[in-house]
Amino acid sequence: MKIVRYTIDQQEHYGILKNEGQLHRLTGDPFGAREPEGTIDQIDAVTILAPVPAPRIFGAGLNYVSHIKEGGQKTPELPMLFMKPGTTVVGPRDAIILPPKSHDVHFEGELAVVIGRTARNLTEAEALSAVLGYTCANDVSNRPVQHAEMAMGCLLMGKGYDTFCPLGPVIETDLDPTNVNLETRVNGVVRQRINTSDLLFSVAYLVSYLSQGITLLPGDIIITGTPAGVGHMTPGDIIEIEIDGIGVLSNPVTGE
Amino acid sequence: MKIVRYTIDQQEHYGILKNEGQLHRLTGDPFGAREPEGTIDQIDAVTILAPVPAPRIFGAGLNYVSHIKEGGQKTPELPMLFMKPGTTVVGPRDAIILPPKSHDVHFEGELAVVIGRTARNLTEAEALSAVLGYTCANDVSNRPVQHAEMAMGCLLMGKGYDTFCPLGPVIETDLDPTNVNLETRVNGVVRQRINTSDLLFSVAYLVSYLSQGITLLPGDIIITGTPAGVGHMTPGDIIEIEIDGIGVLSNPVTGE
Repeated sequence: MKIVRYTIDQQEHYGILKNEGQLHRLTGDPFGAREPEGTIDQIDAVTILAPVPAPRIFGAGLNYVSHIKEGGQKTPELPMLFMKPGTTVVGPRDAIILPPKSHDVHFEGELAVVIGRTARNLTEAEALSAVLGYTCANDVSNRPVQHAEMAMGCLLMGKGYDTFCPLGPVIETDLDPTNVNLETRVNGVVRQRINTSDLLFSVAYLVSYLSQGITLLPGDIIITGTPAGVGHMTPGDIIEIEIDGIGVLSNPVTGE
Repeated sequence: MKIVRYTIDQQEHYGILKNEGQLHRLTGDPFGAREPEGTIDQIDAVTILAPVPAPRIFGAGLNYVSHIKEGGQKTPELPMLFMKPGTTVVGPRDAIILPPKSHDVHFEGELAVVIGRTARNLTEAEALSAVLGYTCANDVSNRPVQHAEMAMGCLLMGKGYDTFCPLGPVIETDLDPTNVNLETRVNGVVRQRINTSDLLFSVAYLVSYLSQGITLLPGDIIITGTPAGVGHMTPGDIIEIEIDGIGVLSNPVTGE
């Protein structure tokens, strides 16, 4: 099932995407009963939004085995976790805005997990039962700031600017997160290509690990790390992140 | 003005604390018009809550000059920033719950800033105009986890467990954040004592710095760093953080 958050006639709705681009409006949000409201909207007539407004975003760094090997980096013994503020989120087609004076802001294509219910102390076997579905994320990173922060042992501004977390276009509830292909394109040229079977810490492991200390909430987002091939963005670029079964998240890049 | 969030008869309210413990109920939250609703509650009859429910929390590390010198650490050239999830927040008198198998969880008394309005790109001179007021915070930290994370260049679980951010008891709107005394006591014994004039990055600087990249929102919390004297907590301890003009934030410590 594909869940879409969208606006039509200045009103915001969630809907289930069915054949031939029909959106079956829900009465509320998808974290509850998911009851159809009765109205059908055509997808071409709506503006698709990020699947969750202003979520909590938990990010994992250095989480693809091939990327770690390529960089000659030490394999982390525990997940490298950080948070991005909810104000980083923009939807499909929205601009990624490069900060003034920045000269090395990178794209990072990632599989994003959408938590579906309140959950604490999940085992790895239970973890996926708390997941509503999956979407595409771009974990935009201002590298010089990120590196200066990480050298001190922390990370916020390097990944925390407004517009630094495009999400979308849909939440796909039927997806095997252990075996899905991800591809990032810049102006149509493939720059990242991976299968999530290469993840060091799996989605189930990350959800379980976080839930050992943090009560997870409906709408929380976990971005699971990026593979090799990251690179900098220039105003005018179009960044596309495609995940099989989810679709394409496409965002233009502009200056502030 | 002292603003209190509280429950009475299972209903949650904000109120202004006046003479002799009278709470003048507000119609809404304190980020709007702050209009009195007409009812007066007695403070002894209510349960005081954390001043903001599930806020975004931006934290600064290594931010007191004397603490940096004492530890022989390098003075940071830019603020060491991280986030704590909103699920860390508990109110006055609520328990700080030590995770299973943890053996070195520390208290950290801090001045917390409560943002009052949406704000972006503030200069240092403008920054305090976006602040609603100040409260006490305990930036509870699981040191072995924190150090393992910071060695990798990130920070989440070390400061992110549920109950790891007691806040309260009130938001004081009339406070000079450049000159206020803070004291932390464990079972009545003073363990930390500082004046905020010793802050490396001032409140105005931190608010301005964050706002250069992140749109600040009403209810956002900025915890400003802790002075020398941190130490570990044991079940049964009572941790008190007192800031002149705000009051005392007191929390017991328990095992999970």
